Formats: sequence, C-alpha cells, structure tokens
Amino acid sequence: MNERVERLRAALAEPLLVTNPVNVRYLTGFRSTNAAVLVEPDRVRLFTDFRYAEKARRLDGVDVIETSRNLLASIAGQLAGRVAFEADTVTYAGWETLRSGDAEPVPRRRTVERLRAVKDEEELDAIRRAVAVTDRAFERFARERFTGRSERELAWRLEQLLREEGAEAMAFPVVVAAGPTAASPHADPGGRPVGRGETVVVDAGAEVDGYCADCTRTFAAGELDARLRAAYDVCLDAQLAALAAVRAGVHGRDADAVARGRIDATEFAGLFGHGLGHGVGLVVHEEPVMRPESEDVLAPGNVVSVEPGIYLPGEGGVRIEDIVLVAEDGCDVLTRFPKERTAVT
Amino acid sequence: MNERVERLRAALAEPLLVTNPVNVRYLTGFRSTNAAVLVEPDRVRLFTDFRYAEKARRLDGVDVIETSRNLLASIAGQLAGRVAFEADTVTYAGWETLRSGDAEPVPRRRTVERLRAVKDEEELDAIRRAVAVTDRAFERFARERFTGRSERELAWRLEQLLREEGAEAMAFPVVVAAGPTAASPHADPGGRPVGRGETVVVDAGAEVDGYCADCTRTFAAGELDARLRAAYDVCLDAQLAALAAVRAGVHGRDADAVARGRIDATEFAGLFGHGLGHGVGLVVHEEPVMRPESEDVLAPGNVVSVEPGIYLPGEGGVRIEDIVLVAEDGCDVLTRFPKERTAVT
Repeated sequence: MNERVERLRAALAEPLLVTNPVNVRYLTGFRSTNAAVLVEPDRVRLFTDFRYAEKARRLDGVDVIETSRNLLASIAGQLAGRVAFEADTVTYAGWETLRSGDAEPVPRRRTVERLRAVKDEEELDAIRRAVAVTDRAFERFARERFTGRSERELAWRLEQLLREEGAEAMAFPVVVAAGPTAASPHADPGGRPVGRGETVVVDAGAEVDGYCADCTRTFAAGELDARLRAAYDVCLDAQLAALAAVRAGVHGRDADAVARGRIDATEFAGLFGHGLGHGVGLVVHEEPVMRPESEDVLAPGNVVSVEPGIYLPGEGGVRIEDIVLVAEDGCDVLTRFPKERTAVT
Repeated sequence: MNERVERLRAALAEPLLVTNPVNVRYLTGFRSTNAAVLVEPDRVRLFTDFRYAEKARRLDGVDVIETSRNLLASIAGQLAGRVAFEADTVTYAGWETLRSGDAEPVPRRRTVERLRAVKDEEELDAIRRAVAVTDRAFERFARERFTGRSERELAWRLEQLLREEGAEAMAFPVVVAAGPTAASPHADPGGRPVGRGETVVVDAGAEVDGYCADCTRTFAAGELDARLRAAYDVCLDAQLAALAAVRAGVHGRDADAVARGRIDATEFAGLFGHGLGHGVGLVVHEEPVMRPESEDVLAPGNVVSVEPGIYLPGEGGVRIEDIVLVAEDGCDVLTRFPKERTAVT
C-alpha cells in the first residue's frame, strides 16, 4: 500500500476526510477540483463526480464512489460516527452539510500538511527538475533586453522561456516589477516600460510533474544609484547569512531573525516587510514557514525558499530568493542561477 | 460612491465581511490573496497585510486597515456585534477565529454572487473583448496540424495564440482531449499524439481585464466514423435547441432539459454527463447554473455558457460551447467562431 497513506494513518485518531485538492493529489495522485478521500484503517475511498469518475477508476488501491456535483452532501449521506475533516479547507457551509447526516465531524488542522513538509525522494527529484528548468529559463531571460519593454511583456517572455525549458505550468503567476512597482512585494506586472536605473524584481517558478520551483532575482536595468546598490548588497548579505543559518532543528522565526537582523542593522531597518521563506512542494506556499510569528521548526527533508527583500516606497525594491533542501548539518541550495548584482540592458 | 457597493448595501441585513477574493475584486477592483472588505451602511473598510497595503491605499472610497498575515485574527479583534460572513468562503477554522472576538458572526450565502450574476456595461464590454480574443485564437488554432502532435503540445500552442491575441491570462487551463481521452469531460492534456479519425475537444478561454471567456469546439482529425459523426450532429442539434430556449425567466433546469431531451431521444441517451452551462464573469464558473438540479432562473444581463456534450467511453467525445448574453426575448450569442463539423489535418 501507498506509503504516504500509511504515514497518514499512523497520525490519525479517527478516519479523516481529505478535501483539500492538493492533499488528495498527494495521497492518491488524483487531480480534480471536486474529489475527497476518506482514509480509514482498512480502506481508502475516493469520492468524485461523473466528470472525474472514469479517470479515478484507473487508480490503484482506492475504492471509487461516484457522487453528485454536491460532493459533501453525497458524502454526508454515507458517513456515520466520528469523522475528522480538514478545518482549513472545509467551509462553514461545507461543515453544515457534513453534520447534516449521521456523522459527527471533528475539525483537524495541518494533518496532511505536516506530512507534506518532509519530501520523499520522488518529490525531491521533481523539485530538482522544476528548479533546473527555472534556472535555465532565468539564464535565457537575463540575456533579454529589459529597458523600454513593459513588465507585462517581460513576464510573458519569461513564461514562454519557462515553458520552452520544460515547465508544464507556472507555479504561480510570473512577477516582473520594476522601479516604483518593485517597492511592492506582490505587484502584478503592468504596462509601464522598464526605465534605466531601475531595479527589476523577477519572481517565477516552473511546475514540473506537479511540483513547484520558486526563484527571485533582482536585475539592474543599467546603472543603479548608490542607495539601490546598497539595498542590493544588504539584501544579498542577509540572504547569505540566512542560508548559513538554515539547518534541521532551527526555528523558522530564528532563521527569519538572522536575515532581519542584518537588514535592521543598516539604513534599511524595517523595510523587509514579509517573512524569510516558506515550504515549496505541490504548492508554492506550504509548510514550514520562516517568519517572526512562526512556530515551525525545520526538519531534514523540508524544502524552503530563502528570500529576504528590501522595499523602498517610491524608489524600488530588491528581493533575492533561492530554494534549499534542509539537512541535519545545513542546507543544500538547489537554485543555481547566480545572484551577484547583474546589469541587464 | 461605487454602484456595486450600493446595490450590495440594499441587500444586507447587517454589515457583511467579504472575504472571497473575487467578491473583493468585484466590489473594490482590488486584487489580493489576503484581503477582506467590510461593507457597513456608512463606510467600506478594506483589510489587507503589508504586502498589499501600498497598492490598496491607491483605491478610492475605501478605508485601508493594515493587518498581520493572519487576516481573520486581526479583523476579529476589531469587530463587534452581528457581522455577516461568506459561509461558502470562510473555512471552519476561519469561523472559529472570527467568533473568538467580540463579534457575532452570521453565516450568509451567495449575497455578492447574486449581484455578480447580472453584468453591468463595463463588465459586458470586458467579456465581449475576452470572447473576441478567444474567437481569433480559435481561428488561428483551427489552421494548425493536429494529427501526430500531443494534446499537451496543442494546448500550449493554443495558449500562445490566446496570449498573442490579447489574453492577459487563461480563464482556466486549456483543455485539448483527443480520442478516448475526449470521453472524459474534464481531462488534462496528455502526451499521447492525436490520431486520425479522432474527435478533439478543445476548451479554452482568454481572460481580459479580469473577465473570462469560455469556448469549446470539437474538431475532427480527418474523417470520423459514422457514430462519432452522429454524436457531433446530435450535440450540435441539442446546442442549437438550447440556444433557442435561453431567455430571461427560464429556469436553469428547464434550459438544461431542452438539450438533454434532444440527446436522450437518440442512441446517445444518458451520455450527456454534466450540466448545460454556467455563468461566466470574473471567474469562469459562477451564477446562474443550468443543470437538472438548479434552482436558478435566468435574468437579463446574465452571461452563461451553453455547452452540451456527449461522451462515449473508449471512443471519444463531443462538446460544443458558446457564451451568450441573456435578454428578455432570447439571447445574444457572443461567440462567433463557427461550429459546423470541421475537419483538421
């Protein structure tokens, strides 16, 4: 039987109804927007509607139950006794539906997510390939002309390069943010052309075999002024310090504090306005997280981003991000694309 | 003040906390994965974290409140009294967070969704442009060679054409399903090359200014056998009959029954395994829905897909889909790409 299901069973106090589509995919390999998996000690049932049922019947090791489009209502009619549900996925309305039958739904959190945080060999292989595709696309992208082209045009060019290099999909929408827009950590690419002297924050990742990469580099469109150069150098220093600190047993908040401390000791104090990093796998933001309020502790087999940033309102921004594999004695930086300050045309 | 907010206020019994990101976008134009809008009689507050706050402050007519990453926890600390929440979006865990403060959260469903079902002129303009982009991309796509190329390669080609014609993004992942794969209404494009004599179901739509198009055509890769030809002709007949039936005041289930009746009167009875259609707008599946169990009634200004299909396990499938604007006396078919049976090479 499936080893992931076995690990999950060992963590369960009662049967678990898995409704997060990513968790369904993790446990069974099945992709659907309307499916649920009920993991019991002696069997695994997969519920899905007509549209997906034929595909589901090709899976090994699961009993497929065809439902109506109203998945939870169909399931509620077939359950009894205590059944755990994913409280971070099931909506309030879904919970009302689940408890309308004979079952006693019990809220549980992060059960499958905690398993997903530690990657197995098959997962690491897919992540390495996604990172390699992303590296190659960034290499080609860095040879493009930036100035005079819009963020949106550049983002689409990078998406094409990622696809040409082997991405099945984007891990998330490509970010290209230049000049004042780069001062916002989560900007949509716009129509403004990149100007000389601007930093250009480029954040993108390939999806390969369902697994995500995530890479940010900040390019200099021509010569930067002294303040933006300094921001770059401080951000890179903070990123390298964080990489040196990441290892199994370290608290996410402490890794974050290493990078934050470097930045807060400079003129850029207070301008690192997000967390240091997050797990990457089937989705691009997963466990563990490294930020000031995190309770997570790094473990061998975690794959996390390490991505400090400095955001200067009205002026620009810098962010540098690698993906790393956490080990007992440190971390293995999977991203290979260089990160010294690089000018583009 | 914003007319959409005014229409919403008229429908509210108490302040509404809007957390569905699409509804936030509809009411304020603001795009974020971590934002909420509280609509009260005298003001509109937008809650979001640092990453999005700078962008939010450029909005008119809303007070921006910067929160921690844990949006609902921050909001719960600032509310009191009865506050409606979106029961189809807030998770069980989110509801527990909301009720941890001084507020009394009241579940409400479909409040903003019902408003979104009737499009205003600005929305119709965006949808028409998204449909036109999709039409042009399908025209170019129909001139491509199909046989010998994989579904995945063809899907990526169509995505490129959609982008070249003006799509900002895909309304949903492009579907190209050929031969036996076409027998599944929701198949992911695979690596198998398209063979001669197969039907190829192509389902895609551009996103333009945030609004979606949705179009399905079924191409014949060379000559089809008599059964697949018959399936095509029956599906087209059902689609035309449904288009003639769609108008304001018609129940979604009755429009569905028109197409279903045509198919069920043939050798393909029982093989139309999904609903007739769904609303299309900021997302590609929204209200109203036309399927057997629907309670929705069509209204002027609804924009819906009309998409019967016939699925023959092991053999192939056919689906034909247009987008239409519902009017008092009928419907205006927005999709222009032809739908007679068309052979591709």
